[in-house]
Amino acid sequence: MGLKFRPVDASFYELFSESAGHMVTGAGLLAEMLAEGADRDAVASRMRDAEHAADETTHRIIKQVNSTFVTPFDREDIYALASGLDDIMDMMDEAVDMILLYEPSVLPKELSDQVEVIQRCAEVTVASMPRLKSMADLSEFWIEINRLENQGDKIFRRLLASLFSGAYQPMDVLKLKDIVTSLEGAIDAFERVANTVEQIAVKES
Amino acid sequence: MGLKFRPVDASFYELFSESAGHMVTGAGLLAEMLAEGADRDAVASRMRDAEHAADETTHRIIKQVNSTFVTPFDREDIYALASGLDDIMDMMDEAVDMILLYEPSVLPKELSDQVEVIQRCAEVTVASMPRLKSMADLSEFWIEINRLENQGDKIFRRLLASLFSGAYQPMDVLKLKDIVTSLEGAIDAFERVANTVEQIAVKES
Amino acid sequence: MGLKFRPVDASFYELFSESAGHMVTGAGLLAEMLAEGADRDAVASRMRDAEHAADETTHRIIKQVNSTFVTPFDREDIYALASGLDDIMDMMDEAVDMILLYEPSVLPKELSDQVEVIQRCAEVTVASMPRLKSMADLSEFWIEINRLENQGDKIFRRLLASLFSGAYQPMDVLKLKDIVTSLEGAIDAFERVANTVEQIAVKES
Repeated sequence: MGLKFRPVDASFYELFSESAGHMVTGAGLLAEMLAEGADRDAVASRMRDAEHAADETTHRIIKQVNSTFVTPFDREDIYALASGLDDIMDMMDEAVDMILLYEPSVLPKELSDQVEVIQRCAEVTVASMPRLKSMADLSEFWIEINRLENQGDKIFRRLLASLFSGAYQPMDVLKLKDIVTSLEGAIDAFERVANTVEQIAVKES
Repeated sequence: MGLKFRPVDASFYELFSESAGHMVTGAGLLAEMLAEGADRDAVASRMRDAEHAADETTHRIIKQVNSTFVTPFDREDIYALASGLDDIMDMMDEAVDMILLYEPSVLPKELSDQVEVIQRCAEVTVASMPRLKSMADLSEFWIEINRLENQGDKIFRRLLASLFSGAYQPMDVLKLKDIVTSLEGAIDAFERVANTVEQIAVKES
Repeated sequence: MGLKFRPVDASFYELFSESAGHMVTGAGLLAEMLAEGADRDAVASRMRDAEHAADETTHRIIKQVNSTFVTPFDREDIYALASGLDDIMDMMDEAVDMILLYEPSVLPKELSDQVEVIQRCAEVTVASMPRLKSMADLSEFWIEINRLENQGDKIFRRLLASLFSGAYQPMDVLKLKDIVTSLEGAIDAFERVANTVEQIAVKES
């Protein structure tokens, strides 16, 4: 008679990688949403699926932290990291939703610049999650996110100035301001995740 | 010589019922504010009174929780529930205030649909408060609020799409977007209260 | 051989006075930004410097609270006060930034009324910080801030009504609404600081 092994719980590290993986998917869908000739209804529907999948991963992390006696780092930090990642997804979902609902007649090129920053943020975030295990080389992560956030901030401010320059109709300004603010919000949400990771690393070091 | 009885402190349950009762008043005033030919100054003034009354009830709950050694459930949950109810009132007050200040020239019919959802939310909330005592049948409450929140979300998205469809002047869009967002905010605030009640019920079960 | 004295750590009271001092600087820069013929680029750049200086003071407070065994009042209250002061600065910085980026073609006179309220709030706040040591005469502080907040609220509501009265172009409404909302946000942030001070005083009394 063989031994029965209980399947090992998916580790927190794997769940955080899974969560960050949804951000990569979401950022890709944002880029598709802005592409010329995109089927916006279809992309928005896939975004909703991605957002639900991200929600589920978040719930699994919360459930696991509640049912585990020893956690790899402080319980509140796990909550903060999980809900921080979830916030990013909510902002990306909101941006896609607004593009669908508002049907802006123009999409300034700089929107794609914002989305490129978001895609790069998602890539460095997913790459950093496995490193939470060894706590090695995490500073590269938050330094790069801070750099990207600065870059995003410059694009955002340039976009606002351009929206209010008189080159756009009031209705387009109304629509685009909400959209670029959501995208900037997603980048800020990545920065909050990077700050959380930095705090965890400082505590554990 | 007779005995002197100190009046028994109004229980937390009664205070929560009182607090939720203000929401019913507020929701009714919202409906009046949208009615044709309404005396908006008079309704807004009654809304301010209702908001002050709600504030007072919240302060009494906080005061009682601070002066009571044994509370029926966790202190933080009592704070969360009291301030959650207060947030609803603030959102309703904000919506009434905007209608008064902005004087929108048109009020799309769907605004009344939003307010009907809010009135229904207030009714099920006030009905659920006494059930906090027995913790019985509370799941019906949060399931119904979640259903109403989904319905409200659909109305909100339809309203936004319609506002940005080109059928409205930019000034009207500016005004109405703030108002419908406040109303949606009130519904979201009910959902947060329902989530708090769910958490309390899960802990106590 | 003489004794070596370690320099005494700047006390929390001095750091809070320093922090509130940045608010006075910021409020002055807001007033300069609205002045006719202002070099807005130069003023905005000085505002960024002031905001960085305020950030540094906040970090020093947080660092000191983390490295000090006995604090003059509850750790959470010190955090709340420090971050509350920091929030005020962020709102003032945001307002200056918007005036720079949006380049509004008109600046209604009431904006200066809002800024005067902010300047007065900053003055009474900086004057109250040393009184945290003795906890004497602090009620004057929060009573005056509440009075100023009420005054600010009246100006804000009058401004909103005027913006939506039809006297302004939609583009100007869009720009000015953001700016007046930031200024109102700064006043609200002063009120939150006053509430924190009141809570500290109540606890310590």
